[in-house]
Amino acid sequence: MTLMKSWVESANSANTPFPLNNLPYGVFAIDGVEPRCGVAIGDMILDMYAAEEAGLIEIADQPVFDVPYWNDLMELGPEAWATLRTRLQQLLAEGASEQSAVEALLVPLADASLEMPLVVSEYTDFYAGRQHAANMGAILRGSPDLPANWLHIPIGYNGRASSVVVSGTDIHRPLGQSKAPDAEMPSFGPSKRLDIELEMGAIVGTSSEFGQPITVDEADKMIFGYVLLNDWSARDIQGWEYQPLGPFQGKAFGTSISPWIVTSAALEPFRTATPPREKELLPYLNSTIDGLYDIELEVLMKPNGSDTTTSLSKTNYSRMYYSAAEQLCHHAIGGCGMNAGDLLGSGTISGPTKTEYGSLMEVSWAGREPFTLEGGETRTFIEDGDTMTLRGAAKGDGFQIGFGDCVGTILPSVKLP
Amino acid sequence: MTLMKSWVESANSANTPFPLNNLPYGVFAIDGVEPRCGVAIGDMILDMYAAEEAGLIEIADQPVFDVPYWNDLMELGPEAWATLRTRLQQLLAEGASEQSAVEALLVPLADASLEMPLVVSEYTDFYAGRQHAANMGAILRGSPDLPANWLHIPIGYNGRASSVVVSGTDIHRPLGQSKAPDAEMPSFGPSKRLDIELEMGAIVGTSSEFGQPITVDEADKMIFGYVLLNDWSARDIQGWEYQPLGPFQGKAFGTSISPWIVTSAALEPFRTATPPREKELLPYLNSTIDGLYDIELEVLMKPNGSDTTTSLSKTNYSRMYYSAAEQLCHHAIGGCGMNAGDLLGSGTISGPTKTEYGSLMEVSWAGREPFTLEGGETRTFIEDGDTMTLRGAAKGDGFQIGFGDCVGTILPSVKLP
Repeated sequence: MTLMKSWVESANSANTPFPLNNLPYGVFAIDGVEPRCGVAIGDMILDMYAAEEAGLIEIADQPVFDVPYWNDLMELGPEAWATLRTRLQQLLAEGASEQSAVEALLVPLADASLEMPLVVSEYTDFYAGRQHAANMGAILRGSPDLPANWLHIPIGYNGRASSVVVSGTDIHRPLGQSKAPDAEMPSFGPSKRLDIELEMGAIVGTSSEFGQPITVDEADKMIFGYVLLNDWSARDIQGWEYQPLGPFQGKAFGTSISPWIVTSAALEPFRTATPPREKELLPYLNSTIDGLYDIELEVLMKPNGSDTTTSLSKTNYSRMYYSAAEQLCHHAIGGCGMNAGDLLGSGTISGPTKTEYGSLMEVSWAGREPFTLEGGETRTFIEDGDTMTLRGAAKGDGFQIGFGDCVGTILPSVKLP
Repeated sequence: MTLMKSWVESANSANTPFPLNNLPYGVFAIDGVEPRCGVAIGDMILDMYAAEEAGLIEIADQPVFDVPYWNDLMELGPEAWATLRTRLQQLLAEGASEQSAVEALLVPLADASLEMPLVVSEYTDFYAGRQHAANMGAILRGSPDLPANWLHIPIGYNGRASSVVVSGTDIHRPLGQSKAPDAEMPSFGPSKRLDIELEMGAIVGTSSEFGQPITVDEADKMIFGYVLLNDWSARDIQGWEYQPLGPFQGKAFGTSISPWIVTSAALEPFRTATPPREKELLPYLNSTIDGLYDIELEVLMKPNGSDTTTSLSKTNYSRMYYSAAEQLCHHAIGGCGMNAGDLLGSGTISGPTKTEYGSLMEVSWAGREPFTLEGGETRTFIEDGDTMTLRGAAKGDGFQIGFGDCVGTILPSVKLP
C-alpha cells in the first residue's frame, strides 16, 4: 500500500505518523474549550464535535461526538466504523470538495493537550510474549521453561481500569509491601524495582453477550483499534504479593496508553500471522485470520534534567505468540461478557536478543547487569524523575501509521496520609 | 439495639429481614414500569423514584432516583447517606405524619422482580478467610500452611465486573480448558468441578484519588454497604490456568449478589473486631475501628425438581481475618484509584469445622468425600439444574437485618458458536 494524499500538506510526509492512511482517534483539549473527540491528520486535529455539528459527519440518528470519548462510536459497530473512516478519507483527500469547510475545523496538534481517548470499561493484561515469559522464568525461577499452560492458553489476569491513564500523566512511585529473600518480615515503602512493560493494547469495540462464547474470527471483528501500552510494574511488590492470586498492587498504580487509537482498519495492510504453534491449540482457538500486525516498537529512557534520550530496545508486535483476537476469544469462552471500551494488554513484547527486550527487568536481568544511558548515567530500574517513552509505527511504502508517543515520568512517592 | 417500630405492620415481625432498623437499597421492576430504586420495608418496597417526585425525599439539588441504580446516591457521600436514612426512618416510623402519602408509594415485594442494585464499576475478590486458605492449601498442596504473604497482606485479585449478576440470574455451566493431573494434554469442555464461594461483598461508595493512598479508618467511611456474594468457581478450569497469573476464566462466568444492599449504617450495631493478629501487621494496616460484623450466614442446595432444600453449612462473617476496610486500604495503598460502585468480595468464609465450610470444594474435600442431600441424592460438586442459595442476617434483640437470598441455578453449558 502507498501513501494516500491529503490536502493537509503535512499529512503527505513520509515521516508523519498521521497520514490519510491512518486517521487515529483521540480526545483533545484546547484553551477555553471542553475536551472533545478529534482525528489526527498530519500536524493537525480535525474537531469531530464541530464536524458533526456542521453536518459534515453524520453517523447515527443521535450525535456521536457530543461526548469526550470514542465509546459511543464503538457501540455503533463495525459498519458505522467503516462508514466514518470512508467519510473522513473523502473529506480529507486531495481534491475534496469540502476542503474549505473542513479546513476551518482543524486545530494545530501542537496547541492541543491530549486526554484519554476512551472510557476504559475493564482492563485485562495478557502474557503472550514467548521470549518475555522465558526470560521471566529464567530470572525468577532459574529456568526458561514456560509455565505448563503457556503453549495452550493465552493466559492473562484482570487488571485495574481505574489506573489506566493517558500518555503524559505523571506516575508516583508506588508504596507497597515487599520482602527481601533473606528478610524475616516484609517491609513497607516506595518500590525499589520500578519497571515498564512494552505492550500493545487492543480495544474491544462491540459487546459479547454474558453467557455466550465467541470464535476467534468473531473476536477479531470486535476489535476497534490498538494503542501503545506501558504496564508500569513494581517488581518487588509484585514478587511478594503474586502467589497464589497473581499480580495486584504491583500493577495497579498506573498503566499508560498512547493518546491515539489506531483503528484496526488502518492497520489492515500490516496483518501478519502468529508464529508456528509449538503445540497444537485446542480447536476453539483456531481461526482463519492473520491476527498480529507488523508494528515496529521502541523503548526510550531519559533521566531528569538530561537533554539526551537513550533508545533501550527495538522490537516488533509480530513477536507475540498469541493475537489479541485469540486472547479475546479465550476471555469470553466461559461466558464472560465483553464490552465496548474493554482494554486488552498484549503482554510484554520482547524479541530474542537483549536489544529487543521490552522491560528493564529483562534489559538489566533483574538488576544484575546495569546498563549505561547516553550521557553516562547507569540504571537497573527506573529512578525518580526518569521519563520512559514507548514509540511505535507500522511502516508502509512511503508512509507510516503511528500512535503518538506513550510517555510517562516517575515522580517520588507520596507521603502516607 | 431493639426493634424500631414502623407503621408498615409486616416490618415489626421478628422474622422479617427488613424491619425499620434495616432499610436496604435495591432496584425493582413491576408490570409496565421501568426498573427503579426501592427500599425494602417488611413485605413492601418504597418506590424511591415516586417518593422523590412527590417531594417526600430531597437529598440533592438534582434528582438522585431518576436512574435505576444507587451509584448516584453513593457519590453524594456519607453525609447524604445519613440524611437519607434518617428521613426514611422518619417517614416509615410508627406515628409518622406522612404515613398516608408514603403508603400510596409502597409496592408489594411479592409482585416485584429485583434487578442489579448498582452499576459495578470494578470487582475485586479477596482471600481473607483463614480457615478457607488453610483448607485450600491442604487440598491443593497437601499442607494447611498459609502462603508466605497471607498473614501480612489481605491478598486479592481483580475480578470481572461484567460477570456480576443479581440473585435469580441463571448461570450456564462454563466451557473452558482443564487438564487432568495424569493427562498429557489439556482438554476443552464444560467444567466438571463447579462450585460456589460464600462471601460478603463490600460496596465502595466514595472515590479515592488516583495516586493517593488512604488509611483503614478512611476506607471504612468509604464503604456504602454490603451484599451477599456467591463467587461461582470452576475448580478444574481454575486449577489449570492459575499459575502464575491467578484466577481468570475459572471465575469469570458469573458472580451473584443479593438483591439488597444493606447499608453500613444498618449494620453498625453488629460491628465486631477482627481476630487477634498472628503476626503484627505493617502500620499502614492499623486502625481504630472494629471492621467486621456479626452476620450469620448459610449455604443451601436444592436439586432440580426437588421439593427439599438442604442446608449445607452455617457460619459467620466474623470468621474473617481481614476486614473490608483493611482490604480497601491495601487496594489503594499504591495509588490505585477506587470508585463508587467498586465491589470487594471478602473471600470465602469458612469456620473451623466442616459444618461451617463455605465452598463445596471444602465440604466434599475436593470431591473425595461426597455428601448426601435431604431426599437422598449425593453430590461432590454442582450438577446441572441445582439451585444454590446464600442466606444471611445480623440478629438483634427481636429483629434481624437480612439481605434477601442470593440464589442461582446452574444451566447446562451452551454450545460453541
